[in-house]
Amino acid sequence: MQQFTPISDLGEFGLIQRIGELLGKTRNPLLKGIGDDAAVYPIADSRVQVVTSDMLIENVHFDRMFHPLRYLGFKAISVNASDVCAMNALPQYATISLGVPHNMSVEMVEHLYQGVAQACALYGIDLIGGDTTASRQLVIAVTAIGEAEASQIAYRSGARPDDLVCVTGDVGAAYAGLRILLEEKKRFEAAKGEGHAPDLNAFDYVIQRSLSPTARLDMVRNWRENQIVPSAAIDISDGLASEINHLCGQSNVGALLQMAKVPIEILTREVAEQFGEDPETFALYGGDDYELLFTVTPEEAILLDETLFTVIGTITHPEEGLHLELQDGSTMPIASNGFRHF
Amino acid sequence: MQQFTPISDLGEFGLIQRIGELLGKTRNPLLKGIGDDAAVYPIADSRVQVVTSDMLIENVHFDRMFHPLRYLGFKAISVNASDVCAMNALPQYATISLGVPHNMSVEMVEHLYQGVAQACALYGIDLIGGDTTASRQLVIAVTAIGEAEASQIAYRSGARPDDLVCVTGDVGAAYAGLRILLEEKKRFEAAKGEGHAPDLNAFDYVIQRSLSPTARLDMVRNWRENQIVPSAAIDISDGLASEINHLCGQSNVGALLQMAKVPIEILTREVAEQFGEDPETFALYGGDDYELLFTVTPEEAILLDETLFTVIGTITHPEEGLHLELQDGSTMPIASNGFRHF
Repeated sequence: MQQFTPISDLGEFGLIQRIGELLGKTRNPLLKGIGDDAAVYPIADSRVQVVTSDMLIENVHFDRMFHPLRYLGFKAISVNASDVCAMNALPQYATISLGVPHNMSVEMVEHLYQGVAQACALYGIDLIGGDTTASRQLVIAVTAIGEAEASQIAYRSGARPDDLVCVTGDVGAAYAGLRILLEEKKRFEAAKGEGHAPDLNAFDYVIQRSLSPTARLDMVRNWRENQIVPSAAIDISDGLASEINHLCGQSNVGALLQMAKVPIEILTREVAEQFGEDPETFALYGGDDYELLFTVTPEEAILLDETLFTVIGTITHPEEGLHLELQDGSTMPIASNGFRHF
Repeated sequence: MQQFTPISDLGEFGLIQRIGELLGKTRNPLLKGIGDDAAVYPIADSRVQVVTSDMLIENVHFDRMFHPLRYLGFKAISVNASDVCAMNALPQYATISLGVPHNMSVEMVEHLYQGVAQACALYGIDLIGGDTTASRQLVIAVTAIGEAEASQIAYRSGARPDDLVCVTGDVGAAYAGLRILLEEKKRFEAAKGEGHAPDLNAFDYVIQRSLSPTARLDMVRNWRENQIVPSAAIDISDGLASEINHLCGQSNVGALLQMAKVPIEILTREVAEQFGEDPETFALYGGDDYELLFTVTPEEAILLDETLFTVIGTITHPEEGLHLELQDGSTMPIASNGFRHF
């Protein structure tokens, strides 16, 4: 009998590590392979290409019942653009491979591509290829490619003690939006679709954050205008707690974050409280935010546009570990339990 | 009521055209977007990047019951490498996004990646990224990237009257292999798995062509050694008839092919006859061959390694259309009905 180890035993990150071991040594010039937001390889002189692939699968990453196809197309491009931004590069090209179930019409595929086209226009991306095929679930596999100077690239591994830990926008909102949508779905199904007219206007912000997040090209442009390269950067797809663990792990440093400084919108707090949960849990473990988490020196931080980001803590020496200071002054270690698909 | 046009009404190529119209004008330097084997964009001086994405989906492109995972991993890389080769470029980098169903173990994913690693080693590719997620069906979305001189790129659109039409290897074998495998699956299911011990050794060649095709980097290397750039090239994924239609359509030329010259292996003929079908149908419409169909001048053809390819016809003026000369001297138009997933 062959061994059967469930993938949930290893998790996505454990699996990626096993795969890396299988692949062995590289054959072409490569500055960064698997293990950052995107791969980086040199093309000519001091220029590099930045490449990332992310796939969205129906009933794993989205629910077609409440995810309008136009938003879904926008999101598929955004999550890939966000990975390119997390390297301090700007996306230029993308390919989409689409698996289309039989219950989707040409019109529905067009709605999806309207969102794709809208995101491409917003980010300055050209869609240059892909594949379209039948499938049982809707599958959207995107590859995004950007170009940059080699010296501009921000890896996850460059954070140094005394750097400031910064985050763009706010966190936890996408998860708050998802919770609202799941709750409405439950009510709709309980009412069997009859006599159910939800008014979700009050939740617009968090719902939009879940359904059609925007990649933070504005932060990348602001770094560039100020000729600042973050010492480390990562985008927040699996939740702040998970990403700060990745960043500190790869940089071999510790960090002390202040919970009071973590930017959480009032609406996100209200939604969490409505469900009887902590807004802090939403912010730390919610995921799907597509904000940028990055580190810069204090001198660099004051040069950047302060409306784009918040300083939430400081990088420390590795032996100090990774801690969160709570409102009452106590500290706790930051566990990395992000969102797990398996 | 919203309009519902089934995708089968348009087909994959019709859908791609509608999507192209949605996307509008380009924003970045681009030599070729959607509509060839791969996209081409300039990076520096006279160099270009060549990018292609292809996705394999369980029960659409493969059947896990008879497709060993190692072969499947090899094939996923091969079909993408083949698209890069069809531009007269050599692949260098690839990403894989994998959707893994719950009935697959870590060991099974490793088998798949062993095939990926084997193909990457054979083609000189580095796997530089990707995504792994849960899924209902096994999904393998690959993007392959190559580099070349802009002047080396072979598009589908450059064939000229009097060029020779050439094809590498042989065609129809992959389809013959698929037919054998489907037949065996039927017998196995009829026997409910008991007392059924098929001996498929005699069919090794065609089965291997179906399960683990090899991209024709050898032909690309031979073009380069002889400093020959084919006037047009395309890889045979949907069948010879479909691909010669694409090539002639985009080149705005006609062609006259000789059926007697189309390379078909004896085993492929035997399998077709065993099923009471024409070997010529297998060769023209079978698909999944991943051979290269290309055009060169007669002067160029004699410089190339004749063991790698066969001359099967001549490019003609557009008004002469696209015809096939049969064994008896009669001619017929070549319809493009390739393999359709929808």
